[in-house]
This record gives sequence, C-alpha cells and structure tokens, in this order.
Amino acid sequence: MAKGKLQPPRGTRDFFPEDLRLRQWFFEHCRAVAHQFAFEEVDAPIVEHAELFTRKAGEEIVEQLYHFEIHGRHLALRPELTPSIARMVMSRAGALRFPLRWFAIGQNWRYERMTRGRKREHYQWNAEIIGAAEVSAEAELMAAIFSVFGRLGLPPGSVKLRVNSRALLEETLLAGILRKRPEIFAPLCVIVDKLSKIGTDAVAQLLSDPAGPVGIAASDARDVVDLLSVQDLEAAVKNAPADSPSARDLGRLFALLDAYEISEHVVFDASVVRGLAYYTGVVFEAFDAAGTLRAVCGGGRYDRLFETLGGKSMPAVGFGFGDVVIQELLADHGLLPELSRPLDAIVFAMEDALRPEAIRWARQLRGTGQAVEIVLDPARLKRVYADADRAGARRVYLIGPDELERGVARVRDLQTGDERDEKLPD
Amino acid sequence: MAKGKLQPPRGTRDFFPEDLRLRQWFFEHCRAVAHQFAFEEVDAPIVEHAELFTRKAGEEIVEQLYHFEIHGRHLALRPELTPSIARMVMSRAGALRFPLRWFAIGQNWRYERMTRGRKREHYQWNAEIIGAAEVSAEAELMAAIFSVFGRLGLPPGSVKLRVNSRALLEETLLAGILRKRPEIFAPLCVIVDKLSKIGTDAVAQLLSDPAGPVGIAASDARDVVDLLSVQDLEAAVKNAPADSPSARDLGRLFALLDAYEISEHVVFDASVVRGLAYYTGVVFEAFDAAGTLRAVCGGGRYDRLFETLGGKSMPAVGFGFGDVVIQELLADHGLLPELSRPLDAIVFAMEDALRPEAIRWARQLRGTGQAVEIVLDPARLKRVYADADRAGARRVYLIGPDELERGVARVRDLQTGDERDEKLPD
Repeated sequence: MAKGKLQPPRGTRDFFPEDLRLRQWFFEHCRAVAHQFAFEEVDAPIVEHAELFTRKAGEEIVEQLYHFEIHGRHLALRPELTPSIARMVMSRAGALRFPLRWFAIGQNWRYERMTRGRKREHYQWNAEIIGAAEVSAEAELMAAIFSVFGRLGLPPGSVKLRVNSRALLEETLLAGILRKRPEIFAPLCVIVDKLSKIGTDAVAQLLSDPAGPVGIAASDARDVVDLLSVQDLEAAVKNAPADSPSARDLGRLFALLDAYEISEHVVFDASVVRGLAYYTGVVFEAFDAAGTLRAVCGGGRYDRLFETLGGKSMPAVGFGFGDVVIQELLADHGLLPELSRPLDAIVFAMEDALRPEAIRWARQLRGTGQAVEIVLDPARLKRVYADADRAGARRVYLIGPDELERGVARVRDLQTGDERDEKLPD
Repeated sequence: MAKGKLQPPRGTRDFFPEDLRLRQWFFEHCRAVAHQFAFEEVDAPIVEHAELFTRKAGEEIVEQLYHFEIHGRHLALRPELTPSIARMVMSRAGALRFPLRWFAIGQNWRYERMTRGRKREHYQWNAEIIGAAEVSAEAELMAAIFSVFGRLGLPPGSVKLRVNSRALLEETLLAGILRKRPEIFAPLCVIVDKLSKIGTDAVAQLLSDPAGPVGIAASDARDVVDLLSVQDLEAAVKNAPADSPSARDLGRLFALLDAYEISEHVVFDASVVRGLAYYTGVVFEAFDAAGTLRAVCGGGRYDRLFETLGGKSMPAVGFGFGDVVIQELLADHGLLPELSRPLDAIVFAMEDALRPEAIRWARQLRGTGQAVEIVLDPARLKRVYADADRAGARRVYLIGPDELERGVARVRDLQTGDERDEKLPD
C-alpha cells in the first residue's frame, strides 16, 4: 500500500482513543439532553437511494452528494439525516404516536472543496419533532440546544442563536416582488443563504441573473437584499403584510423562549434563511458570539418535506448539530476536557507457570468492574513498572512464586509507590 | 419518491426506537466487557481507499466490496474493520504503546446475494490486540467473548467456540503436499473455508481445479479434506511434524482457557480456517450449540497483515462480533429484553397563556434528569391522558388557571391513578 494511503481518504478522520473519547463525551451530553426532552434515538443506513436527497433547487448539499451506481442502483452516502428520518416516519406513519420526538447521531458526507477546518464528513446530532404545528416545538428544540451548551460548560452569552422565519419572508415577498412567481421562493432562499459567504452584491447578481433559477429584476433583487439586512423583528414585521401569521408566530416564539430563560441569547436576523430548500417556517442558526466560526448548529421548520417525498402533509421541525465547529469553539474557550484512559490495574505473572494465577486475579478484579490488563508476553519487572506508569495505570498486581505460595499478590500503588500484599477474595 | 423507496436500500436496516434500544443494549454489553479488559475504543471512516481492502486471494469479502470511483478516487465502504485499524496503527506506530488493545463498534458493508437472514450491512464489535506474540492474547480475546455471552444471559454451553490453528495446518501441509508450493497456502484456506457451505467433494474439486488458484492433484486435495475432518487436537498434532510450535501453542492456549474457566466450551476443529487470507495462526469461530445459525463471531491471529500493507511486521490477533446472528440466537433463547421508552412525565398547559408555567415545570423536572414531554399543540385533557397511557408515561402534570393561582400542578400517577397537587420546588 502506498505510504500516503496510511491516511484516511482526504477530508475524513480517524478517531484515535483520545479523539473518540472527546467525540463520545460531546454526544453523551447530546444524548443526556435528548433523554431529558423525551426524544427517542433512531438510526438509518448511511447509504440511501440517491433519489432521497436529490432535489432541483440548486442546493449545495445536492451538488456535493457522494453518489454512485452499484449493480444498477443509484445510491448515495447521506449528506444529512432529516430525509432518512422523514422516510422512516412515512414508512410507518400509521403506527406511530405523534408528535414524535426522534433524534439520531450519525455521520454525514459532503464532497466539498477542502479548505481549512472543512471536512468531507462530520458526525451530527439530529433532533426532530414531527407532527407539531406550533412554535412551541421550535422553542423546545432551541431550549435543548442551549441545554447542551450549558452542559459543555460554555458561558452564557458565548453562543447566539439567530432566528428568522422563511414564512415571514415568503409572505412579504409574495405580497410584492414574487406576487406572480411564488414558485421561485425556494431557489431564492438557496441563493440568499450564500449572503454571508459571497456578500450582498453577489447575491443580488445571482438573484437577477436571467439564466439563473430566480431571474428577477435587478431593482427587485436589491429590494430582497435590503429586506435581509433587517435585524429587528419589529422592522421586519412592518415590511410584512398586516396580520401576518408568521409575524405572530415569531412573537409567540420569543415569549416562550422567555419562559425557557434563553431569549436574551436569541436574536432576530432576517439574513438567516438556511441553505436547504425544504424549510418553510422558523429557521435558526447558532454562532459563537465572537463571530469567528461557522454555524455551530442550525435547523428550522419543514412542513412540506413529507409532501415533497410523496407522503401526507406533516408539520415538522428539526436541527442538526455537528461535532466539528463545536470542538473548535470549545477549544477557543479552553473547555475541551482531558479525558484520560481508565486503567485500574495491570496484572503480571513473573513466570510462565504463574499465568493461570494472574488470570484468576484479572478475572476477580474485572468482576468488580475494573479495567484490567494482563501482561501477555514475557517481560522484565522493571519494564512492566515503567510501562504501567506510562499507561497511567493505578496499580500493578505482581504474581511471583512466593506470592502464589502465600495465596497473595504483591500490589503496588503507582500514585503513592506503596506496596502491600493482597489476598485473592473468594 | 416511488412508494418502494420508503424502504431503505435492499439488505440494509432502519433502526426504529425499539430496534436501536436493542442494538445499543447489545453493544453496551460489549463496551462494558471491553472496558474490563482494558480495551480503548477507536473509530475510522466508513469509506476508505478501496486499495486497503483489495487482496488477490480470491476471498468473498473482496468480491463483495461496495466500491466506486468518485472524482478520480477509488473508494470503498469498509467490509470489515481490521484493515482500517491496522492502517491507523501503522500511521502512528512510533507513538503508540504496545501491545495495544483497541476495539471499535461500526457498520460494515458487503454486497452479497440476498438470502433469508442475510443482510448487506451489519454492525460489529471488533477487538484487536496488536503487538503481542503469545497465545495469551488469543485467550484474553476468547475470555472477553464468553464474558459478553454471560452478560447477555446465554446459559453456559449454549455457544461453542471452535478453534484451530492455520499455522498447524500450514506446518502439516508444508511438510508434505505443499512442500514445493508454500505460496498457495492462503488461497487454499480461502477455499477450505467454504467447507461447511459446499461440502467436502466440492472443496476437493476446487482445490484440484487446474484453472483455480491452488490446482493440486486430486489425491492431494482429498488428503487435505481428510485433514480438515479431524476434531481432536491430539490426532491433528500427530499429523503435524514433530515438535510443531503451533501444536505447542494450541496446548498452551487450552491450558490458559482452563484458568479462564471457559475451556469446556472450546473445542478443537480442524475444519475452521476462516475466509480471510490474512490469518496466520490460531483461528476461531463461535457457534450456537444447536448448530442452526451461522457463526456468532470469529477471529484469529494475523501476524503478517502489517507486512502485507507495507509496514513493519507486527504480531496481532482480533475478532469481529456482529449484531445480527447474536440477535437470532438470543431470540431463540427468549433472551431479547423488552426495552421500553423511559418517559417520566408529560406536562400539559390547559390554556395557551399557561404555557410559560408548563415550561417552568418541565425545566424543573428535566433538571433532575427526568425524561419530560411538553404537550406542544392545543389538546383536550381527555386525549392527553389517553395518549400518555399509550406512551407509557408515568405521570401527567396538569397546569390549569386554578393550579397556577395556587402555585401548584395537578399530578396524576398513571400507574395508580392517584392525583395530588405538587408545588414547584425553587
């Protein structure tokens, strides 16, 4: 195998023990919060029919699909979890209790150009509430997200949630610019999502490109961009038609966030629309307060995804929370824990004939839940001690001929250096 | 999306909450045992360079590879975990402490013809000891396997471990039939592994096929098949050269298994050679005692894999333990647990204006670690109770205007039907 091939494929990660401890530490916090919020965990294949993910709205996520033909089937590595979860719900809809609260923790793949800090896979905590129409569902999800931030040790205020409503934007545009072309709202959102990456001029240009999926007049494109710059809910509501239901929803959402005591960390931001075509209502993204990192997590309401997939209409809201950006943020705050390997004991038989006795000791100690190594190949005592130190073991159990005769092991505590004889309990 | 596409790709599984609880129950037992045996968990990408898995020995696992070209790279879904773990070890060999004990729990893919009970993916617990030359490592792994059987509730004797040594077979054949063609030993093993599936005649025929990878004389092929029928270690040792090191190793292995108190469940079986080309020494497979299922798990020593991958020679032994056959076995024994959803409380605000109070209650209860749902959309009380029953909730917390005024919630215990007022703790 070529030397370069010792690395995993470009943009993917190996998880050595210390890496995996960290990943599991993060997701165990997500699991604990999901448990408190009464979510049930599910899982779907990492390979799906490509058809589940291909949509025609020009989304990046579809362009970056890892897809391939194999034995006449068109398959894809999932780029996100929501479509799989929607598919599962549809396949059993009659037998499920709604609203359901499901979460999944899994790997997603995107074939993107490699830049610093970007990867082609990440693990993601996905939580979905399916079958609830009111913004109380959005509020629950946001509360769950802040609950994880708190558990990870992030100080209050270090992460801001930016919230908008696609429905509000849609109502506003449908009452004006898009009055005659409501069908271009989804591709318009896909373009608008690029705002923070490419800037207002480029977005306006894409929106007015006559060969593009939207192709509105240049002055209309400018008006759209202006609408997005609003960072004040009242001003956004003024731009919307009177008695806008989505404006009322946003007001209710903030009132609920008050009860969760997180509203001071949630801000309205009309530029947040998210890059997925299927969102229909409230959308949100969390960012570090310093604004130096990409979105920590994001989600929104997608009340029409089930119809798009050929199912019955079903209100739904969800989010994805990846393992990459949060680790950068925690590192910036010095909050990544040192998670050392638990190694309670190393058992060493000084002679080959004493191995059965060493095994008896190891079995006994393991039976009490301790993490125990047996020295497997012949070794010198001095090397065993040095190695046990290096491994961070707590104790070494030494079985020599003399110990065997007296029915004991010689136990050295590696923290204190103390030694004593210990009897094998029955 | 086509109706049939509501199912995951053929041969793959969705894990609904009850399925995932079962899968996690199984792997948590594996993790607990791995912890006691001082293994550290690692993980590698599910997509690797195809080159890592392609070998020329005619193995099924290579023929069944899910592989594809994408942007000029030849990638594959991993069919097994060992090569990825070997690659990781090679990429950091200088910085690791040996012998290392690593385990991984992950999904593997094989594109095989679909028959009853066969799938194209399975999850597998993989444990490897790398850098230990003696059979004490094999004994540790076998003990870990039986420790899991015990934790799962399988009665002693319900699973048998069949053990052989490829080295013993190799020594025996190299002293005779393969004296002049030692290089065909690995492909010979790949064919011999089909014995239980296709029978002795077909194996003898494949071995003597002049167009095949082995092509030995028909009488030699018959002698090989005869060697495989031996189920008695002493008889197998008699066929081997005098002072055979691998015969001595097998004897030592059984002595160690005595100390682990599992030797009565381990039998010598010369027909076990395993289907992977890279095994070099002891090989083993666990089967249900009734002999009705495929192998529950299997593994062996692979001292030359690191060289094959272009690295330094490194003794190593490992096994894989999948999630599919063990579930069939547990089901046969009536040992699959009923794992219900934990749902401690449902909180219900009788009026929209009372939602903030319901949220306060939910936060309080969640803060104590309880799993708590909030009723998200308006509902009638009667329906909430019926639904809570169906969901298996323990208690319903009811917030009405009267309760709010008195600073309490009305709590109904769904097991006893008792109701009482409870004050929100500070």
